[in-house]
Amino acid sequence: MGRHHLRQLAACPQAQVVAICDLDQERLRAAQQEFGVERTFTNYRKMLQLPGLQAVSVVTPNYLHMSQTIAALQAGMHVMCEKPLAMTYAQAQRMVAEAKRRRRILMMHYNGRFSGEAFFLKNYIQRGGLGRIYFAKAGYTRRRGIPGLGTWFTQKAKAGGGALIDIGVHALDLALWMMGYPKAVEVLGGVYAEFGPALATRSKPFDVDDLGCGLVRFANGSTLFLEASWASNIGRDSFYVQLLGTKGGAEREEGLRIFTQEDGATTDVTPTRYTDSVPSAQHHFIDCILRGKKPIAPGEEGAQTVRILEAIYKSASSGRAARLR
Amino acid sequence: MGRHHLRQLAACPQAQVVAICDLDQERLRAAQQEFGVERTFTNYRKMLQLPGLQAVSVVTPNYLHMSQTIAALQAGMHVMCEKPLAMTYAQAQRMVAEAKRRRRILMMHYNGRFSGEAFFLKNYIQRGGLGRIYFAKAGYTRRRGIPGLGTWFTQKAKAGGGALIDIGVHALDLALWMMGYPKAVEVLGGVYAEFGPALATRSKPFDVDDLGCGLVRFANGSTLFLEASWASNIGRDSFYVQLLGTKGGAEREEGLRIFTQEDGATTDVTPTRYTDSVPSAQHHFIDCILRGKKPIAPGEEGAQTVRILEAIYKSASSGRAARLR
Amino acid sequence: MGRHHLRQLAACPQAQVVAICDLDQERLRAAQQEFGVERTFTNYRKMLQLPGLQAVSVVTPNYLHMSQTIAALQAGMHVMCEKPLAMTYAQAQRMVAEAKRRRRILMMHYNGRFSGEAFFLKNYIQRGGLGRIYFAKAGYTRRRGIPGLGTWFTQKAKAGGGALIDIGVHALDLALWMMGYPKAVEVLGGVYAEFGPALATRSKPFDVDDLGCGLVRFANGSTLFLEASWASNIGRDSFYVQLLGTKGGAEREEGLRIFTQEDGATTDVTPTRYTDSVPSAQHHFIDCILRGKKPIAPGEEGAQTVRILEAIYKSASSGRAARLR
Amino acid sequence: MGRHHLRQLAACPQAQVVAICDLDQERLRAAQQEFGVERTFTNYRKMLQLPGLQAVSVVTPNYLHMSQTIAALQAGMHVMCEKPLAMTYAQAQRMVAEAKRRRRILMMHYNGRFSGEAFFLKNYIQRGGLGRIYFAKAGYTRRRGIPGLGTWFTQKAKAGGGALIDIGVHALDLALWMMGYPKAVEVLGGVYAEFGPALATRSKPFDVDDLGCGLVRFANGSTLFLEASWASNIGRDSFYVQLLGTKGGAEREEGLRIFTQEDGATTDVTPTRYTDSVPSAQHHFIDCILRGKKPIAPGEEGAQTVRILEAIYKSASSGRAARLR
Amino acid sequence: MGRHHLRQLAACPQAQVVAICDLDQERLRAAQQEFGVERTFTNYRKMLQLPGLQAVSVVTPNYLHMSQTIAALQAGMHVMCEKPLAMTYAQAQRMVAEAKRRRRILMMHYNGRFSGEAFFLKNYIQRGGLGRIYFAKAGYTRRRGIPGLGTWFTQKAKAGGGALIDIGVHALDLALWMMGYPKAVEVLGGVYAEFGPALATRSKPFDVDDLGCGLVRFANGSTLFLEASWASNIGRDSFYVQLLGTKGGAEREEGLRIFTQEDGATTDVTPTRYTDSVPSAQHHFIDCILRGKKPIAPGEEGAQTVRILEAIYKSASSGRAARLR
Amino acid sequence: MGRHHLRQLAACPQAQVVAICDLDQERLRAAQQEFGVERTFTNYRKMLQLPGLQAVSVVTPNYLHMSQTIAALQAGMHVMCEKPLAMTYAQAQRMVAEAKRRRRILMMHYNGRFSGEAFFLKNYIQRGGLGRIYFAKAGYTRRRGIPGLGTWFTQKAKAGGGALIDIGVHALDLALWMMGYPKAVEVLGGVYAEFGPALATRSKPFDVDDLGCGLVRFANGSTLFLEASWASNIGRDSFYVQLLGTKGGAEREEGLRIFTQEDGATTDVTPTRYTDSVPSAQHHFIDCILRGKKPIAPGEEGAQTVRILEAIYKSASSGRAARLR
Repeated sequence: MGRHHLRQLAACPQAQVVAICDLDQERLRAAQQEFGVERTFTNYRKMLQLPGLQAVSVVTPNYLHMSQTIAALQAGMHVMCEKPLAMTYAQAQRMVAEAKRRRRILMMHYNGRFSGEAFFLKNYIQRGGLGRIYFAKAGYTRRRGIPGLGTWFTQKAKAGGGALIDIGVHALDLALWMMGYPKAVEVLGGVYAEFGPALATRSKPFDVDDLGCGLVRFANGSTLFLEASWASNIGRDSFYVQLLGTKGGAEREEGLRIFTQEDGATTDVTPTRYTDSVPSAQHHFIDCILRGKKPIAPGEEGAQTVRILEAIYKSASSGRAARLR
Repeated sequence: MGRHHLRQLAACPQAQVVAICDLDQERLRAAQQEFGVERTFTNYRKMLQLPGLQAVSVVTPNYLHMSQTIAALQAGMHVMCEKPLAMTYAQAQRMVAEAKRRRRILMMHYNGRFSGEAFFLKNYIQRGGLGRIYFAKAGYTRRRGIPGLGTWFTQKAKAGGGALIDIGVHALDLALWMMGYPKAVEVLGGVYAEFGPALATRSKPFDVDDLGCGLVRFANGSTLFLEASWASNIGRDSFYVQLLGTKGGAEREEGLRIFTQEDGATTDVTPTRYTDSVPSAQHHFIDCILRGKKPIAPGEEGAQTVRILEAIYKSASSGRAARLR
Repeated sequence: MGRHHLRQLAACPQAQVVAICDLDQERLRAAQQEFGVERTFTNYRKMLQLPGLQAVSVVTPNYLHMSQTIAALQAGMHVMCEKPLAMTYAQAQRMVAEAKRRRRILMMHYNGRFSGEAFFLKNYIQRGGLGRIYFAKAGYTRRRGIPGLGTWFTQKAKAGGGALIDIGVHALDLALWMMGYPKAVEVLGGVYAEFGPALATRSKPFDVDDLGCGLVRFANGSTLFLEASWASNIGRDSFYVQLLGTKGGAEREEGLRIFTQEDGATTDVTPTRYTDSVPSAQHHFIDCILRGKKPIAPGEEGAQTVRILEAIYKSASSGRAARLR
Repeated sequence: MGRHHLRQLAACPQAQVVAICDLDQERLRAAQQEFGVERTFTNYRKMLQLPGLQAVSVVTPNYLHMSQTIAALQAGMHVMCEKPLAMTYAQAQRMVAEAKRRRRILMMHYNGRFSGEAFFLKNYIQRGGLGRIYFAKAGYTRRRGIPGLGTWFTQKAKAGGGALIDIGVHALDLALWMMGYPKAVEVLGGVYAEFGPALATRSKPFDVDDLGCGLVRFANGSTLFLEASWASNIGRDSFYVQLLGTKGGAEREEGLRIFTQEDGATTDVTPTRYTDSVPSAQHHFIDCILRGKKPIAPGEEGAQTVRILEAIYKSASSGRAARLR
Repeated sequence: MGRHHLRQLAACPQAQVVAICDLDQERLRAAQQEFGVERTFTNYRKMLQLPGLQAVSVVTPNYLHMSQTIAALQAGMHVMCEKPLAMTYAQAQRMVAEAKRRRRILMMHYNGRFSGEAFFLKNYIQRGGLGRIYFAKAGYTRRRGIPGLGTWFTQKAKAGGGALIDIGVHALDLALWMMGYPKAVEVLGGVYAEFGPALATRSKPFDVDDLGCGLVRFANGSTLFLEASWASNIGRDSFYVQLLGTKGGAEREEGLRIFTQEDGATTDVTPTRYTDSVPSAQHHFIDCILRGKKPIAPGEEGAQTVRILEAIYKSASSGRAARLR
Repeated sequence: MGRHHLRQLAACPQAQVVAICDLDQERLRAAQQEFGVERTFTNYRKMLQLPGLQAVSVVTPNYLHMSQTIAALQAGMHVMCEKPLAMTYAQAQRMVAEAKRRRRILMMHYNGRFSGEAFFLKNYIQRGGLGRIYFAKAGYTRRRGIPGLGTWFTQKAKAGGGALIDIGVHALDLALWMMGYPKAVEVLGGVYAEFGPALATRSKPFDVDDLGCGLVRFANGSTLFLEASWASNIGRDSFYVQLLGTKGGAEREEGLRIFTQEDGATTDVTPTRYTDSVPSAQHHFIDCILRGKKPIAPGEEGAQTVRILEAIYKSASSGRAARLR
């Protein structure tokens, strides 16, 4: 788990990976060899006592995020946590509060943000290129792509949910980041499991959603439609964000395109080569620690995405809209 | 107004167009000449007294639909009414009730249903080809396509709304028809006017929406996302309906495609030539009158679409979901 | 000749076409009928004496442009002249001088400028979107498209030249307009006739170029490459202008695309719908007369394109570069 | 030779490759090393005496198939034989008879059948999806792709024929499998060598066909057109099978498409992802041995393809149709 | 019937259409008006007595071709006959013999030959560009395109056959023309009616083929595969001819492409614009009469195509190859 | 440096790489290991004294080409020199003269010539396929592709120039080779540096061109337009040569296409597979040495390209055309 993640960390020249913790001994040895890590652990609490350790990256099943992150923060670590921040908003709030109390960085590992096109679009929006964004759509949908049954992904108790919380979270975060993380006030949702249950067995349960959708209204009057599926009868898999603003619109699906108007014509703007270099999430995390900067993807925003996802689940089970105070 | 409409009526061999009513004398004369109509009127109440007249087609601004339809029904006419049936659900209910009382046909002029691909898809669904439909998306969106300012289209008092009620109604009806017109119970919506107001003048007002969206939950648990725009910063205009069912999915955008699974493969099904002939809405209306059949697009369904659109407008103005009892 | 031209003139509501002059009686009658013109002439000098006539459009073979334009200016007319302004720079200078002396408008009928994309690009450049333009390429090239032999087009005495002066002039003018008509100082050219002579007969002579090219250096250091062909062994016909500026580049070939850089990415900008209306050359000419405005395409610029084309011909025949003082 | 083949065999978990026989010592050593095979032989008769050996895969030049297969069957082995089964129908019949006598499996190594799309189509046809197939076309054609001269492929005495028997056999078998291997009764053919002879030298002879074609009539009235070429002046290489049935048609060329009619429209059906797993020919062979199943591709069908190919060769040399009793 | 045909004839400046014969009075009047023809007839024998008439174009149902053509030839006319020349080879031979006896032109109206690409390819082949053609494929296939039931097209007694003789004849003739009309010696065929019978009623019979195919061997050893269908479960309609020669190959389907080899590369040659003008069949016919030239498409070749088609029908009904002496 | 180059040399079976010289010790060791070279040097003069050495390949910064080549020639070596041959025509002439005096081969390493398409086109032209070439365009242009600052590439003293001499030389040579290296007589050019200077620092200077263009007239009357850029606001990078001849034209950009006319049609000829094998420049060099052949790319031609490039630089700096005596 997290081999790519480790590779990114190991590639950061300003810091060093000194310890890895994993319950799987074989995986541990393989990683130790590949990355030349000094120490390995199977008990993360022991690892946290290692002298000189300053920061931790948590890449574990969702149900462990809270306890491990809080333990790390309490041990004085900065923490980068895999998405979703937690299974519930209540958990997420405790994590954010702990980081605040300890004055430690709690950063989300939202790697969808750390790309040339995402940085370009964020800058473009911040410079006012789209005007005010009032409507957005975002989705991460697959035709056939349920994670392996028998893993924690398909169990509500360990994952907190299915397609929505696993991949929908990427689309939701990217859209919200571009919109400036407005405050959500009302959510109506639908959640379905039409493919997973037929594949499940007693030892390989499936009690989460394989398709979810929701409409979110924000305090500033804007709305966002979200959809996510692990399995659905659609033509092709898609990860998209569409933003409609008063001055321009943007569509990120296969590449990024911006639709605007100037000099008497509607115009399409297509970035072709991203010439500025974009740091990996890992680089950025280390950079924030070393320079005392605020991370681009703070834990607070991770908590907000969990809050909205929770509201969709709640709305779907009640059949009514959920009000967020 | 309604030149294409008259052409379709005139082409029906089983019936005859005997009278036309229009406030515009010139248009009236032109139509009389083109279609060889005997009588013309500028007062529709006078026309309704014409002996032998059996049916009427109402193609007027939205705010006139109710009064004219009810007058026609009361005069014993069958009525085909242009979409939307009315500006409000209350109006629509009165129209439906009057038709019932008078035992006359009240049919919606939803021409989007009367195409080879729509008939094909409806049959496919009725034969169970998609299984149970649990999630749908529908939209009618334009980049730059606000109707001419100064017409009734852009005035709330005469149209009841803007993009949503003018073109969104087509997408909404087509999706609902395919879904079997389930009962809507909860609606969350957003409605915006970001382009129209800048174009408006005192004599050419604009007080309706140029973009609207909503999520609708139905009593059977399914959900539908709807969007419509006259103007928005998007890449290309689109009229689409996407249906996700337990056995298959369908996408009608540029042509119709169906996504399903058989014999160990996901399969795409693409209708290529529609070999069965499909009647025009006008033919079908006349056919129903002559043979005493129930129309495919009854006034009741026209009332349901108005009900949902009204709920979106209500939700958008209150900022909360609207509950439909 | 000039049927499309007349149609544009007749469509201008602010003015009236009162007379047409043509040596061909049949063509004259047909035009009179189509456009409801009062008077027709076969002698233009007589037409110029018509009371109330204010402006004239000269659409005749190149060798007549000077004498007819000067006669019209002397009769107090404003003149719009078909491209090229004249066969030589000396002729062109006399025409420009006469217009100045008479304080009359002498406008070029460069219809390539009067399009949505040309206006858009000109605005874009004037707002600084391309920065300083330092290199350009322009061409109007055909694989097989020599004008009918036996017409004045293929005779040097009547046309002044072949492909270069007939169609190359369009590409040259469009590029120069975008560059701000810098002053040309040095020209090296090549001119060829490889297809036309083989088609010629005694009664249908061909003594002009069917391919020409040149490189032009301007006083501000920028350069422009020009090519034109009526016939050449190329893959497809093309009318293009490419502009390279310090901030952005533009390419008009099939549609218009702009290449620039912003926010850490190279970006392509593609105008899609030209929402501003663009006048025809004819409308603009009449507008300038009625409002006393300076025309967008003044005779002076027509003279400059002739000057450069003349220099290419001269360079090609001498085999050395031509210096323009 | 057969490296890929060996890899497939070695990948079967239910069986073990215990011995390899090859005349080339170096190749033998390399294979032993790669696949960890215990024993190697250069004399296949010795290998057949190895205790415990149950099955053999024959991947040798065509002229050796019969003798080696029969020897293996006589030694009690099950045999999977490379296509074509033999050089003549007489040889093929002897092989089939021997397998029958010894009650051993004789399976064809027709790997073209063991793909997701072939299995899908076979199922589709067996469920009646195409109705009755009455006409088919099949081909395996190359622009420039003659096997290396100097090998056994281009010698009639060792290969039995050229393009037809080497690659045409794949197209022929796939079409016949889909058609249900109807009984052939009449064959008309043409066989040519227009490219190979010019490349041949005394030591690198070429006395086979580089293009062959034939039309086959079956006892049930259906017909099949077959073509194969190693070299021909065509636009692109192709391996295709086209089947026309009373209810639907199928075309396998670049992917698989099915053409049918339903609900008042002609429809195209395109499988996109084959979700069922398909065994390799090698897996299937071992599976048949272990479970006593009949192989999908029995030797009898291999004999029938040889019979038809032989008839094409015979027809081509006689210039008349060949009758199959 | 034959409106396009008449238009072509009327467009020939060297001749005049003086009379038309048709059983349908209304069609006759319409044609007379459109083309300004002097005389009209409903009895062709009367028309043939018209003084001054020199040539006749026969565009009637197939079963009338022989009697009308022979009558016209006997009246001294030159005749251009619609394809197929006749329903049987015996009929066709009588027609050819009569023309020979009377020394009159009997030309086939094979309009497929009179196109820029057909002329180009014929020249290319005659110059040796393809070398010797040894294999060809030709087809005219439709997915759904049976001529209107109730017409003579679907009745064997009036048409002689179905898809093969109606449209297959075009593909067959074009291929044979390119091959130099070699002598056919052996034919194997298949003929089917899988769609037509289901559409037939007593008053609208269907007793012909809707798909036919055949392989033809020629005396020079070359072979030709032919297929034709009015209805079949294929992906798209197609009219194609593919020719394989020793030096090059040609494919005419959507446009014309030639595949050859030169200077160490296989090369594709694509004609783009046909600059030479090609006469219509009608112009050519008149030209041959006026200048005493032999027509490009002589009746003899029309007879040969009928002979081959007849052999395919015969082979299909007997289930054996047909030998042509 | 030159790793690919060494690989090509090492792959030549007729010769052996016995020594390498490089100032960079590490690179030297790596190359020695990879290619199994016996001796390594950091002083090339020492290497030249190695007994048995017959030929040298010079792949060093431009400013070293002359001195090293002359030293090698004086030591009796044959030399293949990287493009450009030298920084000035004077240098190039000295090198050519030395090779002549010593009767040694001086070959240009123009690897653009050693490809299937270049050989094909050269043959095609030599056989007269394009007729006489009278106009050509050639370019090597990049949107963003300035070589790393801080290297010798961006310093005039070490490279002699920028984009023109670095990559423009490839396009220029290929075009001239195809044209038969006609004698240049007049050159007009433009040279710009609009991107590089903004990236430069004191330690990483940039004093060369990032875009250059020129028009060249030859003694035979033909003209050639050349352009090259390391950075420019264009849509896509391109390496192209376009040749217009009296019989045909050729365009090499993405693949090679030839445009010609035959049999009444313009035709496009597209080579698809190059079946003849083409030697690498390295193989050809060795082949020339061993067989005493003249190299395809002699030093004289390398000198001519330098002469033209020098003239463009001179013209651009003077603002006037440069005359070549």
